[in-house]
Amino acid sequence: MRATVIHDARDIRVEDRPTPTIVTPTDVIVQVVAACVCGSDLWPYRGIRDTKEPRQIGHEFVGTVSAVGDAVTGLHVGDFVIAPFTTNDGTCQACRAGITSSCDHQSTFGVTPDAYGNPVGGAQAEFVRVPDAEASLVLVPGPVDDALVPSLLTLSDVFSTGHHAAVSAHVGPGSTVVVVGDGAVGLCAVLAASRLGADRVIAMSRHKDRQALAREFGATDIVATRGDEGVAEVRALLGGDLADCALEAVGTAESMDQALRVVRPGGNVGYVGVPAGGPELPLPYLFGTNITVGGGIAPARAYIPELLPDVLSGAVEPGKVFDLELPLDDAAEAYRAMDERRAIKVLLRP
Amino acid sequence: MRATVIHDARDIRVEDRPTPTIVTPTDVIVQVVAACVCGSDLWPYRGIRDTKEPRQIGHEFVGTVSAVGDAVTGLHVGDFVIAPFTTNDGTCQACRAGITSSCDHQSTFGVTPDAYGNPVGGAQAEFVRVPDAEASLVLVPGPVDDALVPSLLTLSDVFSTGHHAAVSAHVGPGSTVVVVGDGAVGLCAVLAASRLGADRVIAMSRHKDRQALAREFGATDIVATRGDEGVAEVRALLGGDLADCALEAVGTAESMDQALRVVRPGGNVGYVGVPAGGPELPLPYLFGTNITVGGGIAPARAYIPELLPDVLSGAVEPGKVFDLELPLDDAAEAYRAMDERRAIKVLLRP
Repeated sequence: MRATVIHDARDIRVEDRPTPTIVTPTDVIVQVVAACVCGSDLWPYRGIRDTKEPRQIGHEFVGTVSAVGDAVTGLHVGDFVIAPFTTNDGTCQACRAGITSSCDHQSTFGVTPDAYGNPVGGAQAEFVRVPDAEASLVLVPGPVDDALVPSLLTLSDVFSTGHHAAVSAHVGPGSTVVVVGDGAVGLCAVLAASRLGADRVIAMSRHKDRQALAREFGATDIVATRGDEGVAEVRALLGGDLADCALEAVGTAESMDQALRVVRPGGNVGYVGVPAGGPELPLPYLFGTNITVGGGIAPARAYIPELLPDVLSGAVEPGKVFDLELPLDDAAEAYRAMDERRAIKVLLRP
Repeated sequence: MRATVIHDARDIRVEDRPTPTIVTPTDVIVQVVAACVCGSDLWPYRGIRDTKEPRQIGHEFVGTVSAVGDAVTGLHVGDFVIAPFTTNDGTCQACRAGITSSCDHQSTFGVTPDAYGNPVGGAQAEFVRVPDAEASLVLVPGPVDDALVPSLLTLSDVFSTGHHAAVSAHVGPGSTVVVVGDGAVGLCAVLAASRLGADRVIAMSRHKDRQALAREFGATDIVATRGDEGVAEVRALLGGDLADCALEAVGTAESMDQALRVVRPGGNVGYVGVPAGGPELPLPYLFGTNITVGGGIAPARAYIPELLPDVLSGAVEPGKVFDLELPLDDAAEAYRAMDERRAIKVLLRP
């Protein structure tokens, strides 16, 4: 099969690789209908994270079941499924608590092996082996309209992750919310906050095209400045107050600092940006302000059943974050386009 | 008047100081009925925090109003009042959100000056000036039974602070809770968690007398070990699981680490220990586990109206944390008794 392989920083190649097969009776093989490039894929692409040896990359995909293991009873060949970006066993304490992404037996497509030590391939490929498939995959009742594929694909990661930021920050009816980060996750966080009934959603963005999409997703205000100036603008918009909630969707020390500083005493920061170094959380500041910090790697699997109906009905269209679609063979160009900010998010079709 | 003054590490003296008078029309002068020594007073006592110049110390007290400023209408001479350990203006965004301790115009008795720059005296004294008195003080309808004074005094700080840890960790009916710290605040956190309906309350304590009081306050289990061993004991008590909530009531890097490690993925740490150095919060660990960290300086003023009825009715008796009562003139001995762990908490009567 064809699969996207990262060899080193800025070295993305689509190559022939062995088509995955059932390894464990709880596995399913999915033929990919659509995959995409994530902001977090840019960390190794830019060399901010080392690539020690070539590996298949990508962790977001939807597709159809092409083979099932002997222990799988709830999924069948031909089923359309959404794969959350992490797999989970469905039985451990984390899974029972709905935190499927922190499962004892978690694996991440293209990153970490499964609970049995077998590698789990990347999603930017023609086929993917899914361990613990019945607990991990979400069946979409067919037939599935092809026009819905982009929005369904966002449930795999970015829309579920934006929703996690909003849930972690306790966004609800009447909340005032600032979203830090205008990548696909930040934009989906705007959509999620709006969907949850926030009164004001302030998107911090300096890019016209992203500002426009943020508005379309429900942002009531745009702040293009940062740092002290950004805080002052937020205060001006909120009549001198700070926000109830900040959603951090970048993962740098600067973005976390910005999120902490736009939130009122006793407010909540929900963060989903993969921490990319920088200082840890400043406990004395948190102590003095009573700001709560929650979030982490999003339990997409747990959220998809709640979010799916709104996607299927068209009530929300998170798929609008895809402003470029390319064939899988052009994966290298997809990475370049996102790296150079020519695209917000690129959808790949095998 | 007589007042307790810290001159340097381990140098506590009760001295004659000017009796405070009304400075601002919103002030009230309170004649102290009872004050006490806080675990956080031991930081400067032990020299962990510098004492640059002698200052009146103590921030917890109850008493009767002895003078009121011209702008004060709701309090009258003779009223029995509880003073939260911080004052607040009652109007800023933090106050409106119920986070009175993070008020824009916060002052802490014996520590920080008021909003007008006037010093605010310590509570281990005969009289205390209270700025923003109407917003800050809580009236207790009289007459007040002297036997209730110790429990009423805990509302000033330790019981309200223990409650804040429990609220910040989202303790509720059915929760499994671990309390890290067996000082007065930790013990009050046990009581608060139990009062909020927790199913299991595991107190981490190595001291027989404190273990006994923890049991009296509703602890269902005691864990006397720490570190990895403590985590294993918690797991054994919870059938292999970790706790939903941990309440951190110490303020050291070790106690925060312990709290983070006894909580399940997606669980909550409520912390109220004054951060005493050590590393900041480990963001990558929080990201992977989805543990939420909330808490800080407790908004005692906001909690007292909710907690007071249970204290007045005797439904809870947090005053049991006082296992030694001394006259104010023996304040130095009170500090020694707490420093040497001969007493959990010492009540001082002027």
